Amino acid sequence: MSIVTLLTDFGTIDSYVAEVKGVLLSQAPLATLIDITHEIPPGNVRAAAYLLERAWKHFPPSTVHLVVVDPGVGTERAALVLTLQHQFFVGPDNGVFTSILSQPGVLATVLPIPEDAAPTFHGRDVFAPAAASLANRGWWPELGKRLTGPGVRLEMHSPQPDGSGWIGEIVYVDRFGNLVTNLGRQHLAPQCVIKVGAAEIPLVKTYEEVAPGALLAYLGSAGALEIAVRGGSASQVLQAKLGQTVRVEQG
Amino acid sequence: MSIVTLLTDFGTIDSYVAEVKGVLLSQAPLATLIDITHEIPPGNVRAAAYLLERAWKHFPPSTVHLVVVDPGVGTERAALVLTLQHQFFVGPDNGVFTSILSQPGVLATVLPIPEDAAPTFHGRDVFAPAAASLANRGWWPELGKRLTGPGVRLEMHSPQPDGSGWIGEIVYVDRFGNLVTNLGRQHLAPQCVIKVGAAEIPLVKTYEEVAPGALLAYLGSAGALEIAVRGGSASQVLQAKLGQTVRVEQG
Amino acid sequence: MSIVTLLTDFGTIDSYVAEVKGVLLSQAPLATLIDITHEIPPGNVRAAAYLLERAWKHFPPSTVHLVVVDPGVGTERAALVLTLQHQFFVGPDNGVFTSILSQPGVLATVLPIPEDAAPTFHGRDVFAPAAASLANRGWWPELGKRLTGPGVRLEMHSPQPDGSGWIGEIVYVDRFGNLVTNLGRQHLAPQCVIKVGAAEIPLVKTYEEVAPGALLAYLGSAGALEIAVRGGSASQVLQAKLGQTVRVEQG
Repeated sequence: MSIVTLLTDFGTIDSYVAEVKGVLLSQAPLATLIDITHEIPPGNVRAAAYLLERAWKHFPPSTVHLVVVDPGVGTERAALVLTLQHQFFVGPDNGVFTSILSQPGVLATVLPIPEDAAPTFHGRDVFAPAAASLANRGWWPELGKRLTGPGVRLEMHSPQPDGSGWIGEIVYVDRFGNLVTNLGRQHLAPQCVIKVGAAEIPLVKTYEEVAPGALLAYLGSAGALEIAVRGGSASQVLQAKLGQTVRVEQG
Repeated sequence: MSIVTLLTDFGTIDSYVAEVKGVLLSQAPLATLIDITHEIPPGNVRAAAYLLERAWKHFPPSTVHLVVVDPGVGTERAALVLTLQHQFFVGPDNGVFTSILSQPGVLATVLPIPEDAAPTFHGRDVFAPAAASLANRGWWPELGKRLTGPGVRLEMHSPQPDGSGWIGEIVYVDRFGNLVTNLGRQHLAPQCVIKVGAAEIPLVKTYEEVAPGALLAYLGSAGALEIAVRGGSASQVLQAKLGQTVRVEQG
Repeated sequence: MSIVTLLTDFGTIDSYVAEVKGVLLSQAPLATLIDITHEIPPGNVRAAAYLLERAWKHFPPSTVHLVVVDPGVGTERAALVLTLQHQFFVGPDNGVFTSILSQPGVLATVLPIPEDAAPTFHGRDVFAPAAASLANRGWWPELGKRLTGPGVRLEMHSPQPDGSGWIGEIVYVDRFGNLVTNLGRQHLAPQCVIKVGAAEIPLVKTYEEVAPGALLAYLGSAGALEIAVRGGSASQVLQAKLGQTVRVEQG
């Protein structure tokens, strides 16, 4: 009775997600299906990689994560099955698994593409049957061959030291307009100040430490430094974008 | 095998809902998870309270309702577990449980906040584990202490008598632009007319009693007087807003 | 342990879907609920019919499909239960079941409307209890009477021969802006060219056969000719609409 999560850019207005789920439940009737999201902007592999990395650690062993953000569907890009910490990951080799592939102990195998798979819908015809098989058996007999090479990995910027502080960047903007950075606890000091452009932002623990409408920075629920506005949107207030510089300065 | 419903303002584009579900299924693998909605406007406690009140009565005994619309997360606001009619309610003490708290027979207890809970994500780190525990055991051993005081309750306006009629207001606008009021069967008479601003609206039973594009009023599926446009949006036609006055006049 | 799918125009911001699911799980606690979509534009029976036709074939025997796109709710339109290939279909007789009703072997019966059903919410009060009963028992004892007459069917245009080619039309536009036509494999030849207005579009197998930003045509995952833009939206590029003409010409 495994869990299968779904992370796609299919949206929820068409039948694509349901077709995938029909295949999953036809072949793995006892699987529990959980949507991570289907609202990835079309083809945005980086956003999918970020959300997968946040979500998968909260699921139990034997969970199968089906990731179909696949702008290269039908091309020569490989189809992958990864195993890591007794969980499984099924999807295209295009960078969505960047963080998984770099973990110690990951096992990466290549999924064969059936002749009769629709060239534009591997999610339904290639990845879903593989995920169903993994959900049924709770393990992976390495039916495919081992992946040769490192797999496709997105370039990830690390924070750089800058005098007594650090220079990082915005890596994700969420629905609330909160700005998630690539900075973490190790880059912060008790008296530091966060700067985005000309804005100086206090480092606090909870929203109520600042006035309504004010900017604040805090260690977010995934362990990264985030910037928000109490009762508002930091994305709007700062007109901030993905990749924009965030500085940590000793106060 | 309990049901856990989720009612949040997390949206569906990020991983927040999936993180909560991962925690729920890790701790209560047999729970059935049902989304009420995740599209509550950020921090809109009143909309959450309205939808919870509509939805919970349709679920069977031992259902756990997890409500995370929590603009005060990480502050001193209490975390609650309520029991009413063999169902459970888990979430912040900020008014989302207004109607539950006022029911006879409700039992309200306070949930302890673990030291290591992320101050910005009690939905995942505080409420989900409590909901999982309730789903597993189907009861609540009052691990927390009884809530002292009445709990936070939103101000709810009751219709006021006005000559031979009533003055009520709009309490919810749905996706179709239908206007739900705080008026009910007891405020209506066979010959009455409904007025919103200058518009006079006939009281009918079904849409087909008026012409396409025309306004109508009827007792809606939650027992409240609603105002709609056949094949259109009353919200657009009347430019009506939450809290706006609705009059019932004897015809 | 049947599957019940839901296909509605209820949206996901209100409690309507949850009320239906509460009724389903109260009466069929072991059912697995799967959303096809709730984002059908309000009252758009044709879009619902298209998505149902795509999705249902991927589900296993004994699945119950609950379709509630029902602008005539509360009127004299019949409520239907159909059986086809060991699957069940529950919903209004307004055209949503056009393709199901025209299949050989379909059995159509009429569902009685209980006196106390909310005239505006048959999805919850009429169709959900019927779907729950079907999910529990896995069969349908024909509690209602046989449907007399053919049932309501939408007019569907077939491609017309045009010299050595065919004239078809756009029948669906998906989230990616892909244009799905009523043309299929039988209308295509190896050297043919696809025309929409003045645009000449090559027939290919995968996206990578054309340059980024270019138009392409291919047999899509439901077997129909589709028109897309690599990395873009054909709907935007061609300013194309439902019902617009698509020509197949011998190249």
